[in-house]
Amino acid sequence: MAAYNRSMSIPLRELQFDLFDVLGLQHMWPEGPELAPAVLEAAAHIAANSFAPQAAKADIEEPQWVDGRVVLPAETAAAQRALAEAGFLGTAFPPEYGGSGLPFTLSQACGSIFAAANVGFYSYSLLTQGAANLLLHFASDTQRAAWVPAMLAGRVFGTMCLSEPHAGSSLADISTLATRRDDGRYLLRGRKMWISGGEHELGENIVHLVLARTPDAPPGVKGISLFLVPRFTDSAARRSNGVSLVGLNHKMGWRAHVNTALAFGDAEPCVGELIGELHQGLNYMFLMMNEARVTVGLSAAAIGFAGYQYSLAYARERRQGRSLAARSSVAQIPIVEHADVKRMLLAQKAWVEGALDLVLYCARLVDELRLPTQATSVDAGLLLDFLTPIAKSWPAEYALEANKLAIQVAGGAGYTRDLPLERLYRDNRLNHIHEGAYGIHGLDLLGRKVAMQEGAAFVLWQDRLQQSERAAESFVDLRTEADGLSAARRKAVQVTAELVATLKSGQAELALANATLYLDAIGIITVAWRWLERARTAATRLSTLPVEHADHEFYRGKLAACRYFYRYELPRAMNALEFLATLDDTLLRTDSREL
Amino acid sequence: MAAYNRSMSIPLRELQFDLFDVLGLQHMWPEGPELAPAVLEAAAHIAANSFAPQAAKADIEEPQWVDGRVVLPAETAAAQRALAEAGFLGTAFPPEYGGSGLPFTLSQACGSIFAAANVGFYSYSLLTQGAANLLLHFASDTQRAAWVPAMLAGRVFGTMCLSEPHAGSSLADISTLATRRDDGRYLLRGRKMWISGGEHELGENIVHLVLARTPDAPPGVKGISLFLVPRFTDSAARRSNGVSLVGLNHKMGWRAHVNTALAFGDAEPCVGELIGELHQGLNYMFLMMNEARVTVGLSAAAIGFAGYQYSLAYARERRQGRSLAARSSVAQIPIVEHADVKRMLLAQKAWVEGALDLVLYCARLVDELRLPTQATSVDAGLLLDFLTPIAKSWPAEYALEANKLAIQVAGGAGYTRDLPLERLYRDNRLNHIHEGAYGIHGLDLLGRKVAMQEGAAFVLWQDRLQQSERAAESFVDLRTEADGLSAARRKAVQVTAELVATLKSGQAELALANATLYLDAIGIITVAWRWLERARTAATRLSTLPVEHADHEFYRGKLAACRYFYRYELPRAMNALEFLATLDDTLLRTDSREL
Repeated sequence: MAAYNRSMSIPLRELQFDLFDVLGLQHMWPEGPELAPAVLEAAAHIAANSFAPQAAKADIEEPQWVDGRVVLPAETAAAQRALAEAGFLGTAFPPEYGGSGLPFTLSQACGSIFAAANVGFYSYSLLTQGAANLLLHFASDTQRAAWVPAMLAGRVFGTMCLSEPHAGSSLADISTLATRRDDGRYLLRGRKMWISGGEHELGENIVHLVLARTPDAPPGVKGISLFLVPRFTDSAARRSNGVSLVGLNHKMGWRAHVNTALAFGDAEPCVGELIGELHQGLNYMFLMMNEARVTVGLSAAAIGFAGYQYSLAYARERRQGRSLAARSSVAQIPIVEHADVKRMLLAQKAWVEGALDLVLYCARLVDELRLPTQATSVDAGLLLDFLTPIAKSWPAEYALEANKLAIQVAGGAGYTRDLPLERLYRDNRLNHIHEGAYGIHGLDLLGRKVAMQEGAAFVLWQDRLQQSERAAESFVDLRTEADGLSAARRKAVQVTAELVATLKSGQAELALANATLYLDAIGIITVAWRWLERARTAATRLSTLPVEHADHEFYRGKLAACRYFYRYELPRAMNALEFLATLDDTLLRTDSREL
Repeated sequence: MAAYNRSMSIPLRELQFDLFDVLGLQHMWPEGPELAPAVLEAAAHIAANSFAPQAAKADIEEPQWVDGRVVLPAETAAAQRALAEAGFLGTAFPPEYGGSGLPFTLSQACGSIFAAANVGFYSYSLLTQGAANLLLHFASDTQRAAWVPAMLAGRVFGTMCLSEPHAGSSLADISTLATRRDDGRYLLRGRKMWISGGEHELGENIVHLVLARTPDAPPGVKGISLFLVPRFTDSAARRSNGVSLVGLNHKMGWRAHVNTALAFGDAEPCVGELIGELHQGLNYMFLMMNEARVTVGLSAAAIGFAGYQYSLAYARERRQGRSLAARSSVAQIPIVEHADVKRMLLAQKAWVEGALDLVLYCARLVDELRLPTQATSVDAGLLLDFLTPIAKSWPAEYALEANKLAIQVAGGAGYTRDLPLERLYRDNRLNHIHEGAYGIHGLDLLGRKVAMQEGAAFVLWQDRLQQSERAAESFVDLRTEADGLSAARRKAVQVTAELVATLKSGQAELALANATLYLDAIGIITVAWRWLERARTAATRLSTLPVEHADHEFYRGKLAACRYFYRYELPRAMNALEFLATLDDTLLRTDSREL
């Protein structure tokens, strides 16, 4: 079992292939090929020592609420310290705040290693990075100086407080109130739900970023402002600031992380500071959401990857059955040789490697946004906006399915808690729910993203796919795939035009009724594009590689997974697009009383 | 929450519709319409009182191994007693053994109620019924008299001991040894794995039905015999018979049931009796397997049904968001009114009602087999053989997906352990694994069932579908569906012929490489057929129902789910069949080292 545990990490070989061979990160980070291996190695070392071995224990010993305090397994704090001390909180942050100023893409690659090892532990870092990033963009100089360096050092943790008991997907309905005091600060009062990392003693303080309304604010999302609310008004003295724990949420998975319900200003006054301008709260959140949502996709892909690696190791070792032709006197063979087991492993490989590449591609767009070239930045921003619902949802769907297959590969053993597969499956089920439920992202993509700026983002998406199709044409082995992508792209363009026309004709309900299916279809085509890029890269490498080179199998594996994806997965997208074109009204005409 | 818990049971209205309106059980059981309601009511009463309220607790307090004894929550025994005392173990057994002699279909309908309420508790009954049924068919008069009445009375429990640590899917490799003694009995020695209900103190004894080899037996499956091995040689004196508990398996779900590893004849001698003839063990098991596998499908469907009912109740109550056109000042609406939530509920309805109908249809075939008419019995037996891998696997796949959507409907709350949805999802994940893994059933259907007796079973399947198509033609509202089923059936026939030809041409590996996809496709078409039958029944009822009748919505719901199934689900089967026709060799040409 020890061997399996080691093999659960995402192979550094895979990450380097993706970062440099596929995504060409060296073009914006020339020292990358030289520096990245050591950084990834360091992350893998911490993950293997402080994250992975504690994952099963932390799943069992979930956070407890004892005498008003949140009690976590002791290993939680040690893991956070190890990660922070090695500088992994600030990998992609500016040096003036204590960061390393390295690409966001590299930071995400490291993140995938931590998430694969123990996503619950890693979530404390993720949330803190997200909150620090938001402060970096929208807070005042004073606020930034006060909090960001402490957060990147791992002394102060961060949260995002959006949902309320009656307002989850419907953020327009939040009712937490922020009343201005004479000193310019605000008194907050209200309840927040599903707050990850909402209360713990891992650091000296917690910074809550809270969405709330001022009394005179307009209704709906336009009246929401963002506030900075520290857990303690004074970190050293641990003077409480009226944020109280209402309860812990006990989940199916993700149990290594504390999830809370919080009350602000319930028993004692709670004081916060406005971040940026009034009524811009949701805008700020959404501007940050792209990165947060990409990290959800990243976590999903990473958890799926861990399951794939584990089930692959299991399948190579477990002997059961024989080839169809063999007699029963022949010894049993490793199950990896059975066609159906190969199918389950190839599917996992195609899904999780494709998902990981997709989120790293998006991370690379974030890095492009930071480049000085104005033209590139606009394109990168638009494309990132377009890809965000896909990068969040596609991994959430398919990496979960990968975990389902990983259990199946291991059979009865996979269903037990002796193996980590069932835990990974439980953990991954969350990713379709937090940071916007699946259905919300479908509405976002079809209702907003495809048509925004007169379809400019969608055109960019088409351009990128077309470039890949052309580049792949010169590879005989990839011609079928290039043609397949081209056909899918053209179908997507045609059906999208019909749906957008319907939307603009005033039949929004009809146009959007199957938006989730649309998101799935565009997601499949997007990942098919990524696989064509990956396969073309592998084919290029193979063409110059000596036959006896050890990397042959690695590259041939990319071609195999690409072939699998185009034959088993892409047709589903065509099928869904054909259905979408019919503007089927089954959902709308079904009266809810008939359910 | 109490309301939700009540609503989780399978509605008796639904069961009566299926048993009598759709399946016409009254044709073989004239008193059925009069008697069934009271029987179903009694089952629902026990399920609501002794099964459902204990499900969450039993999930947490899973079986413990303490001082050599298996300790279960006290509620376990009470539930078994309640079920047994009401006669539900013997519903479909002959009166001479203490049974009620009622149809197997009714017994299964009752079973669905128990499984929906608490599948772990119900599994003790299921296994005991399965073992008793096997004894009834193949054991000697003495053996039957000694055990069956005690089993149906709930005093003795039963198990099936097939798997061994090195032989799960590959039963040909079992090595438990049975050596004949002078008195005609056998000494057993070996290890068995994944034995449900393998050790507990719920009754006065446990009867293990054990697959083993005699020393001179031929290798492979042809050398396997079946033995009756009691836990105690003497129930009253509790004199041990050398069956020892090696350990408990701790699973992701199904935790209300004890799952064990057992050793036979390890520390002390273990004595068993041969059942039937030597070397017929696997045949006996497989003859019983049809019923056992149908009950796996039944459990899956029932667990999916419970989740559907719960998420539906949640969606009717939970208010979140507004229609696309509404302003934010309008009150939030129940989420059941959102198109994407309707999609998730319609999908669940179509899957779980379709799955339940499929297994009850198979149960009805079992009842037909018991009828004296020889011609019908042959047909029923063939069709049941053909449908068994589908009735086991289709519910295992789609009712699990239904549980996944049930969680999604409830969002963050669905992911917590405050709601039963995550438990149902965990429980249902087992059904693709036990009683033959998914891939095994694909090989069974495509490699054996479609071609057996020169395709006679497959022809019967086609005939049944064609009859439904013709019967539906006179309903204008169902013409699209009738045409859709006809096209899918013809496609299935064509592709099956190609696959069977490939198989017979000596390219078995190629023909069977995608057998799991074939099973899925034929399963979808089979359930589409069931939905056409259900919709036609509903349309017939609606045509004579006064407009103001309360049942309108019930019947219109069947039409809505049928419409959903033909638009959202059936096209996937066409897609898969087209792919299968290409005889794609991606799986075979992928070297396992490339994974």
